Amino acid sequence: MVLVNEHYLKLAAGYLFPEIDRRVTAFLATHPEAGEDLINCGVGDVTEPLPEAAREAMKRAVDELGNRETFRGYGPPLGHDFLRSAIIEHDQRSRGTSIREEEVFISDGSKGDAGSLLEILGAGNRIAVADPVYPVYVDTNVMTGATGDAMPEGGYEGVLYMPMTRENDFVPELPESSVDVVYLCSPNNPTGAVLTRADLTKWVDWARSNDALIIFDAAYEAFIRDDSIPHSIYEIEGAETCAIECRSFSKNGGFTGVRCGYTICPTALEGTTRDGRRVKLHDLWTRRWQTRSNGVSWPVQCGAAALYSEQGRREVRMLTDYYMENVRILREACESSGLTVFGGRNAPYAWVACPDGVSSWQAFDVMLEQGHVVVTPGCGFGRCGEGYFRVSAFSPRSAVERFAERLESIQWLACT
Amino acid sequence: MVLVNEHYLKLAAGYLFPEIDRRVTAFLATHPEAGEDLINCGVGDVTEPLPEAAREAMKRAVDELGNRETFRGYGPPLGHDFLRSAIIEHDQRSRGTSIREEEVFISDGSKGDAGSLLEILGAGNRIAVADPVYPVYVDTNVMTGATGDAMPEGGYEGVLYMPMTRENDFVPELPESSVDVVYLCSPNNPTGAVLTRADLTKWVDWARSNDALIIFDAAYEAFIRDDSIPHSIYEIEGAETCAIECRSFSKNGGFTGVRCGYTICPTALEGTTRDGRRVKLHDLWTRRWQTRSNGVSWPVQCGAAALYSEQGRREVRMLTDYYMENVRILREACESSGLTVFGGRNAPYAWVACPDGVSSWQAFDVMLEQGHVVVTPGCGFGRCGEGYFRVSAFSPRSAVERFAERLESIQWLACT
Repeated sequence: MVLVNEHYLKLAAGYLFPEIDRRVTAFLATHPEAGEDLINCGVGDVTEPLPEAAREAMKRAVDELGNRETFRGYGPPLGHDFLRSAIIEHDQRSRGTSIREEEVFISDGSKGDAGSLLEILGAGNRIAVADPVYPVYVDTNVMTGATGDAMPEGGYEGVLYMPMTRENDFVPELPESSVDVVYLCSPNNPTGAVLTRADLTKWVDWARSNDALIIFDAAYEAFIRDDSIPHSIYEIEGAETCAIECRSFSKNGGFTGVRCGYTICPTALEGTTRDGRRVKLHDLWTRRWQTRSNGVSWPVQCGAAALYSEQGRREVRMLTDYYMENVRILREACESSGLTVFGGRNAPYAWVACPDGVSSWQAFDVMLEQGHVVVTPGCGFGRCGEGYFRVSAFSPRSAVERFAERLESIQWLACT
Repeated sequence: MVLVNEHYLKLAAGYLFPEIDRRVTAFLATHPEAGEDLINCGVGDVTEPLPEAAREAMKRAVDELGNRETFRGYGPPLGHDFLRSAIIEHDQRSRGTSIREEEVFISDGSKGDAGSLLEILGAGNRIAVADPVYPVYVDTNVMTGATGDAMPEGGYEGVLYMPMTRENDFVPELPESSVDVVYLCSPNNPTGAVLTRADLTKWVDWARSNDALIIFDAAYEAFIRDDSIPHSIYEIEGAETCAIECRSFSKNGGFTGVRCGYTICPTALEGTTRDGRRVKLHDLWTRRWQTRSNGVSWPVQCGAAALYSEQGRREVRMLTDYYMENVRILREACESSGLTVFGGRNAPYAWVACPDGVSSWQAFDVMLEQGHVVVTPGCGFGRCGEGYFRVSAFSPRSAVERFAERLESIQWLACT
């Protein structure tokens, strides 16, 4: 009989968002009047319209498919050159890196890439992730067998969890034990923290001297407002020998439903076979795309490329400014109501400390019951997220403003 | 240092299409006048415009993304219900199967699915494929370690190759040794052969009594013109307990550049752990999509659904009729010139036997040199493809007609 991938059976049930839904549903069942009133600042999905530049480019691309002369069939598995060139020009060369077109791989988004990258890695690598963290990094490693079993207290055996706390300014500390693959996310989901040039330099130097691979998730780089913060890890010298970078058009261009992103896998990057032979990851990643994919949808790639046009860049800036104004309003509202807030200055997420003695889920319940507002309990992202909640800027302005008003009336004493 | 997936290093270099390119380039270098004159019936990529129904639906979907009220963010990872319902109604219920919406998983195409399906299978399954065969089935298994090394004579150790020859009417025979996963493709690429109801019943019965999984690739089902030929394996009783079906909008709807397809993974389908616990593949496949994907692009799914509208179905029929008329012309031209032709009656590919004593590559060279036409040498699809070449219907009619004319003047004696 056909054998299944037993690693899947180690996966703990997805808990966070189903539990949020369960609590909201239960609350609305007893408070139906709150239904229309509910404000959701819990999700990481964008709400504002897709930039016109992207829409017009996509429609033109669809029209081209309507004529035999301009029809496009199978595209290049690694992505169209015009998009790879635009990425290099605007995301890399403009930041002073030496990354080249052939090091860019177009995908349908970062979530897919996080999993696909593991296909080219071998069994037996030890991974390290920040805590709290976007759960996909670990779940995809569970599925490929790079972890042990789920632990009763949360997390998986064999994974090094690196605490991000207010004590270390939400910057994970260098591992003291041996690690092969490290996930870094900056600007961070969920904490909204950013890695400075000094932080990233420390990590790149560590990875180079420890022959480790950094998977750098920069899905939120468009929200960086502090000019001193690197947007790409390749702004750090030597990163092209130790890092893969994941980028997404989901949050800057509003592409969560359109689906496009990319990875950068430099040609200088190497891994090893068990017997010590060095292998270029770029060769494996290229072969992966050639064998497993026929490339990303033609109109989608045209839409993504249009985000780099003059109009597109203006619209992306307006979109990200809109969300950054949202997060400013949310951050300041939390602060005025006496809460301590982290993040939200170079990221669309504010990471809010619950009042003393209040747990993540208690804060969630109080805000739902008293304010009819939904946030994301920090403990859902890992053990170090306990005692925090995440507020997302991805909402219409009117909802954000009402959220801010209602925050003033929350009586935190009620839950302690 | 990070370990790489060493199975990738077993992959033999992709040989067929690069070698075709090399020979064409070399010929044109010495015969530049043949450049404009060259006719390519070698590739499997569509050439005719995308149906209007799909284009209009895609543009409407893009417009919807331009308004906050109709904006769509993250979609369901398994696909939108409207598309899954249309598939069930038109591809399954209409054929009398009992497959349900929740058994349909929308993807960006069959090539991706062929590889992704292996993610939910364990190490140690023995696979069987037809010979000749679409190379992706085996290559993806090589990459996950389900095969041994490449063999000097072609193919990989540990894979059971099932010959498809004129002696067995290009229907693979049931394996006599133990096999866990069998790939069947009907209508077949490259031979254009189809599996009858009797053939499929034999295979389903075998799979059920041997606890094997059939991966049934029906990417070309829209080209079936003989009413007695099953379009879906689920038309055979019991197939829902032993088969996954892959479908694509690439060839029926001209979606090779748009990218959409689907798999059907029935809830009744089971695999096993090493210690004999039975596991539903549907659960694993669901978890795979939830963790690895945010679903297929919104406008793309809208375009695919439009292929099932009344207009869409009419356009798909016109498109496939166009290619079927092409293949009729090509088939008859080959026959008039004295060649023996298989396939091409329920498939867009004709599988042509080379004249006695002529090899696949010799036939390729003669046709290129004398007729300035490009075909695909059968040996590129496996050892049993030697002595054949594939002619593809995916060309504009004018090219097909010129191809047919030129075939008359080929002097086969020149190459023996």
